[in-house]
Amino acid sequence: MTNAFTLHPQLAADTTLVTDGPLSHVLLMNDARYPWLILVPKRPDLVDYDDLSVEDRNTLGSEASAVSKVIKHRFKAHKTNVAMLGNMVPQLHCHVVGRFKDDAAWPGPIWGVGTAEPYEEDAGRDRLATLRADLISAFKHL
Amino acid sequence: MTNAFTLHPQLAADTTLVTDGPLSHVLLMNDARYPWLILVPKRPDLVDYDDLSVEDRNTLGSEASAVSKVIKHRFKAHKTNVAMLGNMVPQLHCHVVGRFKDDAAWPGPIWGVGTAEPYEEDAGRDRLATLRADLISAFKHL
Repeated sequence: MTNAFTLHPQLAADTTLVTDGPLSHVLLMNDARYPWLILVPKRPDLVDYDDLSVEDRNTLGSEASAVSKVIKHRFKAHKTNVAMLGNMVPQLHCHVVGRFKDDAAWPGPIWGVGTAEPYEEDAGRDRLATLRADLISAFKHL
Repeated sequence: MTNAFTLHPQLAADTTLVTDGPLSHVLLMNDARYPWLILVPKRPDLVDYDDLSVEDRNTLGSEASAVSKVIKHRFKAHKTNVAMLGNMVPQLHCHVVGRFKDDAAWPGPIWGVGTAEPYEEDAGRDRLATLRADLISAFKHL
Protein backbone atom coordinates (compact mmCIF):
# COMPACT_ATOMS: atom_id res chain seq x y z
CA MET A 1 0.00 0.00 0.00
CA THR A 2 1.35 3.43 -0.91
CA ASN A 3 0.59 6.63 0.93
CA ALA A 4 -1.42 9.36 -0.76
CA PHE A 5 -0.43 13.01 -0.62
CA THR A 6 -2.41 15.13 1.81
CA LEU A 7 -1.59 18.70 2.72
CA HIS A 8 -0.27 19.08 6.28
CA PRO A 9 -3.06 20.52 8.49
CA GLN A 10 -0.88 23.41 9.71
CA LEU A 11 -0.21 24.53 6.12
CA ALA A 12 -3.90 24.11 5.33
CA ALA A 13 -4.80 26.30 8.33
CA ASP A 14 -2.31 29.10 7.58
CA THR A 15 -2.79 29.45 3.82
CA THR A 16 -5.20 29.65 0.89
CA LEU A 17 -4.70 27.77 -2.37
CA VAL A 18 -3.77 30.11 -5.21
CA THR A 19 -3.32 27.58 -8.00
CA ASP A 20 -1.47 24.38 -8.89
CA GLY A 21 1.78 24.13 -10.78
CA PRO A 22 2.84 20.99 -12.64
CA LEU A 23 4.10 19.51 -9.34
CA SER A 24 3.03 21.70 -6.45
CA HIS A 25 0.20 23.43 -4.69
CA VAL A 26 0.91 27.15 -4.58
CA LEU A 27 -0.42 28.57 -1.33
CA LEU A 28 -0.77 32.16 -0.12
CA MET A 29 0.28 32.64 3.49
CA ASN A 30 -2.36 34.56 5.40
CA ASP A 31 0.04 37.28 6.52
CA ALA A 32 -0.32 40.67 4.87
CA ARG A 33 3.14 41.82 6.06
CA TYR A 34 4.84 40.13 3.10
CA PRO A 35 3.89 38.70 -0.30
CA TRP A 36 4.52 35.16 0.93
CA LEU A 37 3.83 32.07 -1.15
CA ILE A 38 4.49 28.45 -0.31
CA LEU A 39 5.02 25.64 -2.80
CA VAL A 40 4.14 22.13 -1.65
CA PRO A 41 5.06 19.27 -4.01
CA LYS A 42 2.08 16.91 -4.20
CA ARG A 43 4.05 13.79 -3.40
CA PRO A 44 3.67 11.74 -0.23
CA ASP A 45 6.38 11.33 2.39
CA LEU A 46 8.74 14.16 1.39
CA VAL A 47 10.63 15.80 4.24
CA ASP A 48 13.97 17.16 3.05
CA TYR A 49 15.06 18.67 -0.26
CA ASP A 50 17.13 15.59 -1.06
CA ASP A 51 14.00 13.40 -0.86
CA LEU A 52 12.86 14.77 -4.25
CA SER A 53 13.53 12.80 -7.42
CA VAL A 54 15.72 14.62 -9.95
CA GLU A 55 12.75 15.31 -12.16
CA ASP A 56 10.61 16.66 -9.33
CA ARG A 57 13.52 18.73 -8.02
CA ASN A 58 13.90 20.39 -11.40
CA THR A 59 10.17 21.01 -11.65
CA LEU A 60 10.04 22.54 -8.16
CA GLY A 61 12.95 24.76 -9.21
CA SER A 62 11.09 25.99 -12.27
CA GLU A 63 7.96 26.64 -10.19
CA ALA A 64 9.86 28.49 -7.46
CA SER A 65 11.71 30.58 -10.02
CA ALA A 66 8.44 31.52 -11.74
CA VAL A 67 6.83 32.42 -8.40
CA SER A 68 9.87 34.53 -7.48
CA LYS A 69 9.63 36.46 -10.74
CA VAL A 70 5.89 37.06 -10.29
CA ILE A 71 6.41 38.36 -6.75
CA LYS A 72 9.17 40.74 -7.80
CA HIS A 73 7.25 42.02 -10.79
CA ARG A 74 3.81 42.32 -9.19
CA PHE A 75 4.86 43.82 -5.85
CA LYS A 76 8.05 45.61 -6.91
CA ALA A 77 9.87 43.60 -4.24
CA HIS A 78 13.52 44.39 -3.61
CA LYS A 79 14.32 40.68 -3.76
CA THR A 80 12.95 37.27 -2.80
CA ASN A 81 13.90 34.69 -0.19
CA VAL A 82 13.55 31.07 -1.32
CA ALA A 83 13.79 28.58 1.52
CA MET A 84 12.92 25.09 2.65
CA LEU A 85 13.14 24.85 6.44
CA GLY A 86 10.50 22.43 7.69
CA ASN A 87 11.53 22.59 11.33
CA MET A 88 7.96 23.29 12.48
CA VAL A 89 6.01 21.54 9.71
CA PRO A 90 7.86 18.44 8.53
CA GLN A 91 6.14 18.15 5.13
CA LEU A 92 8.52 19.47 2.45
CA HIS A 93 7.50 22.98 1.43
CA CYS A 94 9.29 25.87 -0.21
CA HIS A 95 8.78 29.46 0.92
CA VAL A 96 9.06 32.18 -1.73
CA VAL A 97 8.80 35.56 -0.03
CA GLY A 98 9.05 39.07 -1.43
CA ARG A 99 11.29 41.23 0.72
CA PHE A 100 11.48 45.00 1.05
CA LYS A 101 14.04 47.18 2.76
CA ASP A 102 11.29 48.54 5.00
CA ASP A 103 9.50 45.28 5.80
CA ALA A 104 8.81 44.03 9.34
CA ALA A 105 11.86 41.74 9.54
CA TRP A 106 14.41 43.26 7.14
CA PRO A 107 17.27 42.33 6.89
CA GLY A 108 16.63 39.28 9.07
CA PRO A 109 14.67 36.17 8.14
CA ILE A 110 10.87 36.40 8.40
CA TRP A 111 10.16 33.19 10.31
CA GLY A 112 9.30 33.56 13.97
CA VAL A 113 9.35 37.37 13.83
CA GLY A 114 6.34 39.20 15.29
CA THR A 115 2.78 38.07 14.67
CA ALA A 116 1.03 37.30 11.40
CA GLU A 117 -1.36 40.02 10.20
CA PRO A 118 -4.26 38.26 8.45
CA TYR A 119 -5.52 39.89 5.25
CA GLU A 120 -8.62 42.05 5.40
CA GLU A 121 -11.35 40.26 3.44
CA ASP A 122 -11.25 42.49 0.34
CA ALA A 123 -7.48 42.78 0.26
CA GLY A 124 -7.05 39.02 0.58
CA ARG A 125 -9.53 38.35 -2.20
CA ASP A 126 -7.85 40.88 -4.49
CA ARG A 127 -4.37 39.56 -3.81
CA LEU A 128 -5.50 36.01 -4.44
CA ALA A 129 -7.15 36.92 -7.75
CA THR A 130 -4.12 38.88 -8.93
CA LEU A 131 -1.66 36.16 -8.00
CA ARG A 132 -3.84 33.45 -9.52
CA ALA A 133 -3.93 35.25 -12.87
CA ASP A 134 -0.18 35.98 -12.79
CA LEU A 135 0.77 32.43 -11.87
CA ILE A 136 -1.53 30.68 -14.32
CA SER A 137 0.08 32.82 -17.00
CA ALA A 138 3.64 32.19 -15.74
CA PHE A 139 3.12 28.43 -15.41
CA LYS A 140 2.08 28.21 -19.07
CA HIS A 141 5.72 28.81 -19.98
CA LEU A 142 7.21 26.08 -17.76
CA MET B 1 32.93 43.87 -21.39
CA THR B 2 31.48 41.13 -19.17
CA ASN B 3 31.94 40.86 -15.44
CA ALA B 4 33.95 38.01 -13.96
CA PHE B 5 32.79 36.03 -10.93
CA THR B 6 34.46 36.95 -7.65
CA LEU B 7 33.37 35.65 -4.26
CA HIS B 8 31.72 38.31 -2.09
CA PRO B 9 34.25 39.47 0.57
CA GLN B 10 31.82 38.73 3.45
CA LEU B 11 31.42 35.11 2.32
CA ALA B 12 35.19 34.86 1.88
CA ALA B 13 35.72 36.15 5.43
CA ASP B 14 33.17 33.86 7.10
CA THR B 15 33.96 30.57 5.35
CA THR B 16 36.62 28.15 4.10
CA LEU B 17 36.51 26.50 0.67
CA VAL B 18 35.72 22.78 0.94
CA THR B 19 35.64 21.88 -2.74
CA ASP B 20 34.04 22.87 -6.03
CA GLY B 21 30.98 21.28 -7.59
CA PRO B 22 30.25 21.46 -11.30
CA LEU B 23 28.77 24.95 -10.82
CA SER B 24 29.46 26.17 -7.31
CA HIS B 25 32.04 26.79 -4.64
CA VAL B 26 31.14 24.75 -1.57
CA LEU B 27 32.11 26.70 1.53
CA LEU B 28 32.18 25.69 5.20
CA MET B 29 30.78 28.37 7.51
CA ASN B 30 33.15 28.98 10.39
CA ASP B 31 30.53 28.27 13.04
CA ALA B 32 30.88 25.02 14.97
CA ARG B 33 27.28 25.19 16.26
CA TYR B 34 25.92 23.62 13.07
CA PRO B 35 27.25 21.66 10.09
CA TRP B 36 26.68 24.63 7.79
CA LEU B 37 27.71 24.67 4.15
CA ILE B 38 27.14 27.38 1.56
CA LEU B 39 26.98 26.87 -2.20
CA VAL B 40 27.91 29.84 -4.37
CA PRO B 41 27.35 29.45 -8.14
CA LYS B 42 30.44 30.76 -9.92
CA ARG B 43 28.56 33.08 -12.24
CA PRO B 44 28.74 36.86 -12.14
CA ASP B 45 25.83 39.14 -11.25
CA LEU B 46 23.44 36.61 -9.69
CA VAL B 47 21.23 37.95 -6.91
CA ASP B 48 17.95 36.03 -6.75
CA TYR B 49 17.09 32.41 -7.43
CA ASP B 50 15.26 33.38 -10.61
CA ASP B 51 18.45 34.92 -12.03
CA LEU B 52 19.83 31.41 -12.69
CA SER B 53 19.54 29.86 -16.14
CA VAL B 54 17.50 26.66 -16.23
CA GLU B 55 20.63 24.57 -16.63
CA ASP B 56 22.44 26.26 -13.74
CA ARG B 57 19.31 26.03 -11.57
CA ASN B 58 19.16 22.30 -12.12
CA THR B 59 22.87 21.91 -11.40
CA LEU B 60 22.61 23.94 -8.20
CA GLY B 61 19.70 21.69 -7.20
CA SER B 62 21.77 18.57 -7.71
CA GLU B 63 24.67 20.06 -5.75
CA ALA B 64 22.44 21.20 -2.87
CA SER B 65 20.73 17.83 -2.74
CA ALA B 66 24.10 16.02 -2.62
CA VAL B 67 25.36 18.35 0.13
CA SER B 68 22.15 17.78 2.11
CA LYS B 69 22.60 14.01 1.90
CA VAL B 70 26.23 14.22 2.99
CA ILE B 71 25.34 16.39 5.99
CA LYS B 72 22.58 14.06 7.12
CA HIS B 73 24.70 10.95 6.69
CA ARG B 74 27.97 12.28 8.13
CA PHE B 75 26.54 14.14 11.14
CA LYS B 76 23.37 12.12 11.74
CA ALA B 77 21.42 15.37 11.40
CA HIS B 78 17.69 15.26 12.08
CA LYS B 79 17.09 17.19 8.86
CA THR B 80 18.52 19.96 6.69
CA ASN B 81 17.47 23.52 5.93
CA VAL B 82 18.10 24.63 2.34
CA ALA B 83 17.73 28.37 1.86
CA MET B 84 18.65 31.31 -0.33
CA LEU B 85 18.10 34.56 1.56
CA GLY B 86 20.74 37.08 0.51
CA ASN B 87 19.38 39.95 2.57
CA MET B 88 22.78 40.70 4.10
CA VAL B 89 25.06 39.47 1.29
CA PRO B 90 23.47 40.15 -2.09
CA GLN B 91 25.51 37.58 -4.07
CA LEU B 92 23.32 34.51 -4.68
CA HIS B 93 24.26 31.75 -2.25
CA CYS B 94 22.48 28.68 -0.96
CA HIS B 95 22.72 27.63 2.69
CA VAL B 96 22.55 23.90 3.45
CA VAL B 97 22.49 23.40 7.20
CA GLY B 98 22.20 20.27 9.30
CA ARG B 99 19.66 20.72 12.07
CA PHE B 100 19.27 18.86 15.37
CA LYS B 101 16.45 18.95 17.88
CA ASP B 102 18.94 20.16 20.51
CA ASP B 103 20.82 22.72 18.42
CA ALA B 104 21.22 26.39 19.40
CA ALA B 105 18.29 27.69 17.36
CA TRP B 106 15.90 24.74 17.05
CA PRO B 107 13.12 24.91 15.87
CA GLY B 108 13.71 28.46 14.65
CA PRO B 109 15.90 29.53 11.73
CA ILE B 110 19.65 29.80 12.41
CA TRP B 111 20.32 33.21 10.88
CA GLY B 112 20.83 36.06 13.30
CA VAL B 113 20.62 33.81 16.37
CA GLY B 114 23.39 34.13 18.96
CA THR B 115 27.04 34.42 18.00
CA ALA B 116 29.10 32.23 15.69
CA GLU B 117 31.46 29.84 17.49
CA PRO B 118 34.58 29.51 15.32
CA TYR B 119 36.05 26.02 15.00
CA GLU B 120 39.03 25.07 17.15
CA GLU B 121 42.00 24.59 14.82
CA ASP B 122 42.10 20.78 14.92
CA ALA B 123 38.33 20.36 14.79
CA GLY B 124 38.04 22.72 11.84
CA ARG B 125 40.79 20.92 9.93
CA ASP B 126 39.21 17.53 10.61
CA ARG B 127 35.75 18.65 9.58
CA LEU B 128 37.09 20.19 6.40
CA ALA B 129 38.99 17.04 5.44
CA THR B 130 36.00 14.79 6.13
CA LEU B 131 33.60 16.98 4.19
CA ARG B 132 36.02 17.36 1.31
CA ALA B 133 36.32 13.59 0.94
CA ASP B 134 32.55 13.06 1.25
CA LEU B 135 31.69 15.78 -1.25
CA ILE B 136 34.29 14.84 -3.86
CA SER B 137 32.83 11.35 -3.73
CA ALA B 138 29.20 12.58 -3.88
CA PHE B 139 29.85 14.99 -6.75
CA LYS B 140 31.24 12.15 -8.89
CA HIS B 141 27.67 10.88 -9.20
CA LEU B 142 26.12 14.15 -10.36
